[in-house]
Amino acid sequence: MVTKVRAVQYGCGPIGCGVVRFACQRPDIEIVGAIDIDKSLVGRDLGEVAGLNRKLGVSISDDADAILSKTKPDLVFLTTSSSFKKIHPQLEHCIKAGANIASTCEELSYPYRKAPQLSAEIDRLAKANNVTVLATGVNPGFLMDTWPLAMTGVCQQVEQIRVARVQNASSRRGTFQKKIGAGCTLEEFGERVAAGTLKHVGLPESIAMVASGLGWELDDITETIEPIIAKTQVKTDFVTVKPGQAAGVRQVGRGSRAGKDLIILEFEASVGAPESYDAVYITGTPNMEVVIKGGTHGDIATTAMVVNSIHRVVDAPPGLITMKDLPVVSALGARA
Amino acid sequence: MVTKVRAVQYGCGPIGCGVVRFACQRPDIEIVGAIDIDKSLVGRDLGEVAGLNRKLGVSISDDADAILSKTKPDLVFLTTSSSFKKIHPQLEHCIKAGANIASTCEELSYPYRKAPQLSAEIDRLAKANNVTVLATGVNPGFLMDTWPLAMTGVCQQVEQIRVARVQNASSRRGTFQKKIGAGCTLEEFGERVAAGTLKHVGLPESIAMVASGLGWELDDITETIEPIIAKTQVKTDFVTVKPGQAAGVRQVGRGSRAGKDLIILEFEASVGAPESYDAVYITGTPNMEVVIKGGTHGDIATTAMVVNSIHRVVDAPPGLITMKDLPVVSALGARA
Repeated sequence: MVTKVRAVQYGCGPIGCGVVRFACQRPDIEIVGAIDIDKSLVGRDLGEVAGLNRKLGVSISDDADAILSKTKPDLVFLTTSSSFKKIHPQLEHCIKAGANIASTCEELSYPYRKAPQLSAEIDRLAKANNVTVLATGVNPGFLMDTWPLAMTGVCQQVEQIRVARVQNASSRRGTFQKKIGAGCTLEEFGERVAAGTLKHVGLPESIAMVASGLGWELDDITETIEPIIAKTQVKTDFVTVKPGQAAGVRQVGRGSRAGKDLIILEFEASVGAPESYDAVYITGTPNMEVVIKGGTHGDIATTAMVVNSIHRVVDAPPGLITMKDLPVVSALGARA
Repeated sequence: MVTKVRAVQYGCGPIGCGVVRFACQRPDIEIVGAIDIDKSLVGRDLGEVAGLNRKLGVSISDDADAILSKTKPDLVFLTTSSSFKKIHPQLEHCIKAGANIASTCEELSYPYRKAPQLSAEIDRLAKANNVTVLATGVNPGFLMDTWPLAMTGVCQQVEQIRVARVQNASSRRGTFQKKIGAGCTLEEFGERVAAGTLKHVGLPESIAMVASGLGWELDDITETIEPIIAKTQVKTDFVTVKPGQAAGVRQVGRGSRAGKDLIILEFEASVGAPESYDAVYITGTPNMEVVIKGGTHGDIATTAMVVNSIHRVVDAPPGLITMKDLPVVSALGARA
């Protein structure tokens, strides 16, 4: 039997609450503390905030150090931000408290390229405190990096790799539909792109991880972002999109060398999309086409991946690691 | 730049020769020796035997100990047999010579259930000699164990997992077509099943690995084997199958608990099959269906996987390990 992991939830937003709901179903996890800076959450029971309809006996606190030193967790689920820079002080607190970290921070999933110095610092600190730090999730963390890399294992050579993630967002959370710009005029869409509030974070991190796995030195990693424009009216529970407005977003990341795109990641999320799927296309020996029919539900998959990774994280050698360094992360089978 | 791995090829049959052909294309591998007990191969150059149309300056020898002690390889590609028991003395020679091992021995891919004592012995010996022993390939090694396990990483729970590998063998090697019984009468097919010469080896190993990954204790692992019967005549370059004869084989492995099949592995290989594909079907939260369109070419994929795994094997902690213990194995990207 696996050892029960004593965990603190750090960040009680939608993803953090999803992690808590799933973690509470697991026989191998005990949630022993919760941290959030949101004053409206402080003092409330984590079970109620997470929508469990029962108390967990865990009160949300804004005093991270107090919770970490009082509970001495094996691991912290860190789900506060997409930005490595923003979570950096939080990482330091957790590491110094001797806690392993499983985070959903997109930029931390493969941070060496954008933040080599900060990555080296966190790696040193983690090693000094004998803990392991991992960021994972569905994307980045799996669909556009670990999964395509794993599929290349049966190829003798790879010349180009393309991953497409196409999501019909019609049945997703309202906040997700708004996040992808559904219902924006094209002008609003452009403003939100300029303000940086619309972008899916993680394509460059996935590209860098795939390149590293395949031994490719890239000259450049670029990203484009544009609206998917509704041709007909689309109505969901949360938004109505008129023809000509944005139904969602299309982002393409490219990793190139000598003017040739070696890695192409296509991310599309829009309401009213005809179908959802994830696909890996490998040009090489042999060519491969691998498809997840119906796609992968982002929220379920991200909470699954971060929770499923915990024993691998606890067992891994200390330091800052990525999904590429970790043995296969799998689910727990249903109990008898 | 990765260190060049100095490797000995042990077993110069079709798979071993495939490994050599692929390894010789890699900038990170040097083949320094070759071993085979077949007197008709001894003394010949490995490059010629492997069909490279050039000499490698490596003469095939039947004296394993001499080759191992003379070349002191980092790693041995061990491709002599499907049987753990048969390769056991070969493993011992390699381990005692201080060589890591990447093998295609199907029974070694997850040997703990069928041969717990032998596994423990090899594990102890490998640790004592500071080397790592892995068996891998396409199946077992990837399609029916590592790959489905990896796909469950984005699931919150798994109730049942089914993998289907369906191969149209029409364009495969003649020896492969004969191996799967194509062109046998049903009586001959039954005789070959009874003699154990027709069976694909590895379903129970894959089932045991998946169960271990998902934390399932199985009551039973069973296998069935039956002919796929040709409805119309099928003609390939190597065999003609008449209606009513065997076009190939269908094998099903089942891992069950309390009378319920939790893991179902379906292996079909026949000439004239309408299509080839590999698919993982997960019943759980959420359900998943993942398909490799056109399937996976067994020989290419097995040689790819065993060669692609070498740096992971060399870097892994010593002992007998399985694909479940290893960080993601990926291909090398094409050079600039």
